[in-house]
Amino acid sequence: MPTTATLLMTCQDQKGLVQKISDFIYRRNGNILHADQHIDFGTGQFFSRVEWDLEAFGLAREKIGPEFSRLADSLGMQWELRFSDERTRIAIFVSRLDHCLVDLLHRHAIGELHADVVAIIGNHQLLRPVAEQRGIPYHVFPITAGNKRAQEEKELQLLDSLKVDLIVLARYMQILTQAFVSRYPNRIINIHHSFLPAFAGARPYVQAHARGVKLIGATSHYVTPVVDEGPIIEQDVVRISHRDTVDDLGRKGRDLERVVLARAVRLHLERRVLPYGNKTVVFD
Amino acid sequence: MPTTATLLMTCQDQKGLVQKISDFIYRRNGNILHADQHIDFGTGQFFSRVEWDLEAFGLAREKIGPEFSRLADSLGMQWELRFSDERTRIAIFVSRLDHCLVDLLHRHAIGELHADVVAIIGNHQLLRPVAEQRGIPYHVFPITAGNKRAQEEKELQLLDSLKVDLIVLARYMQILTQAFVSRYPNRIINIHHSFLPAFAGARPYVQAHARGVKLIGATSHYVTPVVDEGPIIEQDVVRISHRDTVDDLGRKGRDLERVVLARAVRLHLERRVLPYGNKTVVFD
Amino acid sequence: MPTTATLLMTCQDQKGLVQKISDFIYRRNGNILHADQHIDFGTGQFFSRVEWDLEAFGLAREKIGPEFSRLADSLGMQWELRFSDERTRIAIFVSRLDHCLVDLLHRHAIGELHADVVAIIGNHQLLRPVAEQRGIPYHVFPITAGNKRAQEEKELQLLDSLKVDLIVLARYMQILTQAFVSRYPNRIINIHHSFLPAFAGARPYVQAHARGVKLIGATSHYVTPVVDEGPIIEQDVVRISHRDTVDDLGRKGRDLERVVLARAVRLHLERRVLPYGNKTVVFD
Amino acid sequence: MPTTATLLMTCQDQKGLVQKISDFIYRRNGNILHADQHIDFGTGQFFSRVEWDLEAFGLAREKIGPEFSRLADSLGMQWELRFSDERTRIAIFVSRLDHCLVDLLHRHAIGELHADVVAIIGNHQLLRPVAEQRGIPYHVFPITAGNKRAQEEKELQLLDSLKVDLIVLARYMQILTQAFVSRYPNRIINIHHSFLPAFAGARPYVQAHARGVKLIGATSHYVTPVVDEGPIIEQDVVRISHRDTVDDLGRKGRDLERVVLARAVRLHLERRVLPYGNKTVVFD
Repeated sequence: MPTTATLLMTCQDQKGLVQKISDFIYRRNGNILHADQHIDFGTGQFFSRVEWDLEAFGLAREKIGPEFSRLADSLGMQWELRFSDERTRIAIFVSRLDHCLVDLLHRHAIGELHADVVAIIGNHQLLRPVAEQRGIPYHVFPITAGNKRAQEEKELQLLDSLKVDLIVLARYMQILTQAFVSRYPNRIINIHHSFLPAFAGARPYVQAHARGVKLIGATSHYVTPVVDEGPIIEQDVVRISHRDTVDDLGRKGRDLERVVLARAVRLHLERRVLPYGNKTVVFD
Repeated sequence: MPTTATLLMTCQDQKGLVQKISDFIYRRNGNILHADQHIDFGTGQFFSRVEWDLEAFGLAREKIGPEFSRLADSLGMQWELRFSDERTRIAIFVSRLDHCLVDLLHRHAIGELHADVVAIIGNHQLLRPVAEQRGIPYHVFPITAGNKRAQEEKELQLLDSLKVDLIVLARYMQILTQAFVSRYPNRIINIHHSFLPAFAGARPYVQAHARGVKLIGATSHYVTPVVDEGPIIEQDVVRISHRDTVDDLGRKGRDLERVVLARAVRLHLERRVLPYGNKTVVFD
Repeated sequence: MPTTATLLMTCQDQKGLVQKISDFIYRRNGNILHADQHIDFGTGQFFSRVEWDLEAFGLAREKIGPEFSRLADSLGMQWELRFSDERTRIAIFVSRLDHCLVDLLHRHAIGELHADVVAIIGNHQLLRPVAEQRGIPYHVFPITAGNKRAQEEKELQLLDSLKVDLIVLARYMQILTQAFVSRYPNRIINIHHSFLPAFAGARPYVQAHARGVKLIGATSHYVTPVVDEGPIIEQDVVRISHRDTVDDLGRKGRDLERVVLARAVRLHLERRVLPYGNKTVVFD
Repeated sequence: MPTTATLLMTCQDQKGLVQKISDFIYRRNGNILHADQHIDFGTGQFFSRVEWDLEAFGLAREKIGPEFSRLADSLGMQWELRFSDERTRIAIFVSRLDHCLVDLLHRHAIGELHADVVAIIGNHQLLRPVAEQRGIPYHVFPITAGNKRAQEEKELQLLDSLKVDLIVLARYMQILTQAFVSRYPNRIINIHHSFLPAFAGARPYVQAHARGVKLIGATSHYVTPVVDEGPIIEQDVVRISHRDTVDDLGRKGRDLERVVLARAVRLHLERRVLPYGNKTVVFD
């Protein structure tokens, strides 16, 4: 696989966007490997993801951003640039359940996730052995009603010192404060064990069992200050029946949670997700 | 296919239920073709569906119910008996959208539904030609804010005179009054075009599009006095993306609605559904 | 919806393709609404679909093709141009089963398919009433072992005289000769009632039942001279169990067949399918 | 959860089977918790799974089998009896890929699998660390063209000495000899990474990519002497597109393989699978 550059872009739709973006790359001798566009005709917003081969590209990589920003500014465009050999630095937050954590670390170990897991942060000691087996530092910040803001402050300092780019809540059972969330806009991914917006809040499998639904779901989304209301990245469902107890829902749901969270993390790492308002464009 | 009798039963769980039911059939020389049981361990409720061959059964069919009722009474059991050569009499309610109606009538025509469609009732004239193509009487009862109770009264008289057993709301856009619903407990099946409890109420595809979900659903349920809250019989989902407009959701959703409603109607006709509280046991 | 032009293109990958295509449109004042690209890195083949608004486009529509052909020739590109207000002319072939036919005609009636169904061709009289209800001419060409080539010749003359663009085999049970197929390359869509390549050939539901699979499928593909081996456009599956008889598989399968065929036809009509070799690129 | 006994039974269908089985349990004061029946009308074969509470059951557990065998013999019935507090002894066979192994061991660790994993057997050293992390003995038997029978003999001695009840091939890349397979009839579960019978044999993802299918699958089945032809326990599929490389198929497929294999193992452990001929009855 060659080293590539990826641009994620959004702006008001206008004539010539595809031409101008591709022209920027072509005139510098770049070969586009993937290009995807979307226009939301309701709002007139343009979205694009373009990935090109850096081999023989006529611009040093540190100059690509500054150069592109001139074009972007002229189009009123927001954009993000990423090189395929940069590794996103991830911190995973956990509580007591380990299935998502074990799954993410296994995917990381076999090379599925192009990222570095630089810290695992728990509000309990329980999952320390899982982290240590993989040789990843485990940090405990117990949360009580009284100390949440203070503990979050310490977590933020740690994340800062580790230059963390992405936080993954792998069945982390604490609600982050608005102050925390606002420091990582669209860079905290949560897995909620329901088909949102159904069964938001606590104990969704108990809710699903009580309602008698015939399918249960899992939803991965960016965390925003309003719980379970952030932009959805990925969802999936599995069939259940009257024979399934709440425990069975938990078991079937774990399989969903792992896959749905892992897909969302991967899509984010490959810069395939563009959040806008409360929704996402996913170029998969 | 032989003519069969089917018993749907529910009572408090107690020792010997399967034995007593099967003994009732075996001692009268019946051969059980299908038998399914379920116990809800939370509530201690027992549910069963048993179907047996009437050939050589040692009891005339009109005597089976009275005889079984003695056993059932001793067990505190609620039950329903149905013979496979009896045809359920269905009335289908429609408004302007024809896809569920066309689908149900086609299934009926090719022999998928062991039932008679004895009336199609619309609140508009629009779908009369669909009914007439199939040779089924079409009745129009326009509904306004002021006349609903009066029109429903006429509908009930018609349903009564036609000995209707089951009402299917095939994208019927009016909300039935509590008085109407209470006349057909667990005998009105609705299709709601969302994955309930998500997006209950009006315009679920618009709601789904606004929320940015990655799957849309359809739910078939028995109608109870509280809108969209009745026992769910069947649900299914289909994947959507940011590229899908509300119209696309409608198109993809139509395919779901047809199949989910048809499955629910079929399950009901074959007496595979046992509602209890706000849930269902589905012996499929 | 504005009137649009769509270009489907494929050629050997080379630098500047996206730039040159978008430049062709931009310099003539066209606004790109959708653009999708794909490169098969195994073969180095480039594929693209671009759709733009014709409003204010600086080239009369009859001149777009000739003008674009100059660019295309210089790139060694194969291409197809289609205007959104042109309606594809479809002939549907049927035998005895009507579910796919009824479904396609219903979709056509409610505006899902932007096409004209100009003929229904059967090898039996059986489905004539379905055609006549919709007011579509029905032609019967009974096929025997001895007359197939002669009958096909008549069919081809009819299709020719009707300027048919697309043939849909809606559970047509005859195998077309190589001579017939070669006249409509990648313009004959078939529905096969299995998850190809499993259960190719005759009676796939009987085969699936005998093998004891837990899911059955349906496959829509372009017809090539080798039966059931053409490029696959769309597939889907549904779960079955040991309780399902071959008849149950038929019933569940019908729901699949209808949806899978309809999706494939729609994808083709919107020029979202690019066949290459024995595969397809589907820009959905 | 109470301790339970489970009977898996099959015989030629005849009148009174359900009555006689339930009577056997009821007269000894047993309370049936689950009962499921199936009749294959094609072959006239009867299948049943009955599970009852041992609390207050009027027969010591070692006497249940001998007592039931008298009834079973009179009915020409094959049967298997299992108590819920008995733990199946599993050996897992692996080669180089660890995703199914890691998954099974994690499920075991969190209590999903009511079994003991008593050995992990590899034909390479590679996965020894995975076994050792979980504290499970790892045995290596390298296989060459020349030594297979001899190595299998040693494996069989080991399995014998460990009283292994069930062998799980967790992406084990060697084909077992007929001699080995015949020692564990319907007690070796394999995961094949295709939707069988499609893409049997080697490199199914390469085959699937070459054919251009739109879904890929995984199949879990009992191993029989004919490769990839044993009775299927569970299957599932996931959607792919033209964008997916063979590596992407591998990645998506791994998620399928893990879940499909784990479901099959669980169904077997709970004695929910009745193989017959080349098929299975699965009471889930």
